[in-house]
Amino acid sequence: MTGPDELPLRPELRGRSPYGAPQVPAAYRLNTNENPHPLPAELLADLGAALGHAALELNRYPDRDAVALRTDLAGYLSRTSGEAVTPQQVWAANGSNEVLQQILQAFGGGGRTALGFTPSYSMHPIISAGTGTAWVDGHRRGDFTIDAAAAAAQVREVRPDVVFVTSPNNPTGTAVALETIEQLYSATAGVLVVDEAYTEFARAGTRSALTLLPGRPRLIVSRTMSKAFGMAGLRLGYLAADAAVVDALQLVRLPYHLSSLTQAAARMALAHTDALLATVDEVKAQRDRIVEALPALGLTSVPSDANFVLFGHFADAPAAWRALLDRGVLVRDVGLPGWLRVTAGTATETDAFLTALAAVVAEHGGRT
Amino acid sequence: MTGPDELPLRPELRGRSPYGAPQVPAAYRLNTNENPHPLPAELLADLGAALGHAALELNRYPDRDAVALRTDLAGYLSRTSGEAVTPQQVWAANGSNEVLQQILQAFGGGGRTALGFTPSYSMHPIISAGTGTAWVDGHRRGDFTIDAAAAAAQVREVRPDVVFVTSPNNPTGTAVALETIEQLYSATAGVLVVDEAYTEFARAGTRSALTLLPGRPRLIVSRTMSKAFGMAGLRLGYLAADAAVVDALQLVRLPYHLSSLTQAAARMALAHTDALLATVDEVKAQRDRIVEALPALGLTSVPSDANFVLFGHFADAPAAWRALLDRGVLVRDVGLPGWLRVTAGTATETDAFLTALAAVVAEHGGRT
Repeated sequence: MTGPDELPLRPELRGRSPYGAPQVPAAYRLNTNENPHPLPAELLADLGAALGHAALELNRYPDRDAVALRTDLAGYLSRTSGEAVTPQQVWAANGSNEVLQQILQAFGGGGRTALGFTPSYSMHPIISAGTGTAWVDGHRRGDFTIDAAAAAAQVREVRPDVVFVTSPNNPTGTAVALETIEQLYSATAGVLVVDEAYTEFARAGTRSALTLLPGRPRLIVSRTMSKAFGMAGLRLGYLAADAAVVDALQLVRLPYHLSSLTQAAARMALAHTDALLATVDEVKAQRDRIVEALPALGLTSVPSDANFVLFGHFADAPAAWRALLDRGVLVRDVGLPGWLRVTAGTATETDAFLTALAAVVAEHGGRT
Repeated sequence: MTGPDELPLRPELRGRSPYGAPQVPAAYRLNTNENPHPLPAELLADLGAALGHAALELNRYPDRDAVALRTDLAGYLSRTSGEAVTPQQVWAANGSNEVLQQILQAFGGGGRTALGFTPSYSMHPIISAGTGTAWVDGHRRGDFTIDAAAAAAQVREVRPDVVFVTSPNNPTGTAVALETIEQLYSATAGVLVVDEAYTEFARAGTRSALTLLPGRPRLIVSRTMSKAFGMAGLRLGYLAADAAVVDALQLVRLPYHLSSLTQAAARMALAHTDALLATVDEVKAQRDRIVEALPALGLTSVPSDANFVLFGHFADAPAAWRALLDRGVLVRDVGLPGWLRVTAGTATETDAFLTALAAVVAEHGGRT
């Protein structure tokens, strides 16, 4: 095999490693924020029928504009946010990663800059790099919240073309106040992307940035069906924004990017929205159980509006990660010294996690 | 709605139109080189079962590395080319468009240049633009063939980072001699991408560029399941290259880019390769029927190794396109003065096309 240095690879990619959580076998996989609840039986039956129907026309290209799917997504957003969202304001792609990549291709790219508030979703800087967009780390407070005034000042100074705000934030878990988002929007002449991948898990009273869309043509709200909808394997991400933003993304989207099967399956899942989202309350209850159990173990957490909890402090988080894995529980070391991230799922998973964690704490004592 | 000029869109995208064939209703859609044959019944049954099985785990992320699918694709390539291709040499994505985009992200991009021999697949320059890669038109002879010595000289002069050769070429139809590809490879220090989307339709004796892979670590051969496999709706493109190239693409691929449904359906289609490719001979027969019928209508064609025919000359190709559409036959105006492109499919489609074409020629006479 040829060595990588013998290939004319872009210089900034040399020596890098591919992104991705370690795919390690474990009895309890609590590292990628999947929804562990199996899909409802009635959805599985309807999915089978919808996919079989779509397969009959697999020799034809899919609807390039995914009009029916975008209509269904707009309906879901309108129903749940109280904000009227039209199909012309919605765009979908293979996971929110592809949605974000298209945004960066249209509004970022070579000679342009993106800014996001670190730590946050680690794909934001990676997709920026993949599109040639320079990256600037935005500042957070020590408790991982965003200081709106300081953040807006940084945005005014850096003048980024794309600003990312993840709300609820990943990997820390906390939703961002709409007032902060408003201030950041006012501070930038670029597009502001609010990544709401986990928003369905937010605590009561949290409002979506969708409600800020009217009058803000440079605001983009991205979503996914991978988390609350429990469809990580489907790869369906989407966004809502001014219709002009959606038009602009047509200039960089790959034609026929969404397969007929993806469009059919996503539509059927949306037709079963209530059944799918029924697991959200259960997941939130498990999240809150984890949060409430931590102090007794001498641990703490960051306030979570997501289906995961960032917990610590550990003297040696990688050692604690390893010790949990040795007990069959795979969590995520997100690279924040002292902290680990665990996905909230079923009661059984919470039991296993808390039991293993108690054992690890007891064993390592102050050394964790 | 906001006007597009009010958005901070990249300047080179302003005023552009999205790529894509006009989606016009017509009795005979012969404009996007789809395979009109329905999928075999036994495949449809097995697809239903495979998709139903995959749906059971849709709440989990797909195999990020698509190992099983790449193994099956490597098996197909090895069987049909006579060249041993390993799974480590194969990579797959959502259509060959995404494969090509990943190649450009890794080996092209800002400050780099791609060169392709125009006219060719129009997505090559568009995806180059979408990744910030400069584009240079390579030269062809008047009969649309590539003059190997002149092309190699141009490559030496331009020093592109990525060279595209489409073989069989789209929209003209002719396969490129392996000797030409060898000369172009020797002439470039960049990667050479041979886009073989239509290769299964090539005339007898045509050899795939896969046979050139050994000892050429900068050679990439791309393929698709959209054409001969009749799976345009599935969106499955792939490539074979040195394993180091595949490793490099991991640095720019979006994690979990290929859905569980895509992977399952593609694997099942590959398990039915013989049944699917059974339609290839029928399509080639229809292509040859079209080619042979043209001279009696006072028309000619470019030699075709694909499932389409570039035919002309017309004094006014757009008028001829419109006149054919008025008779229910949608072909493609690919923007080459005097020429139109028609997809070869079923005998019924050929009948309809030739009947309509004869009427158009009779009506317009010398004016076409």
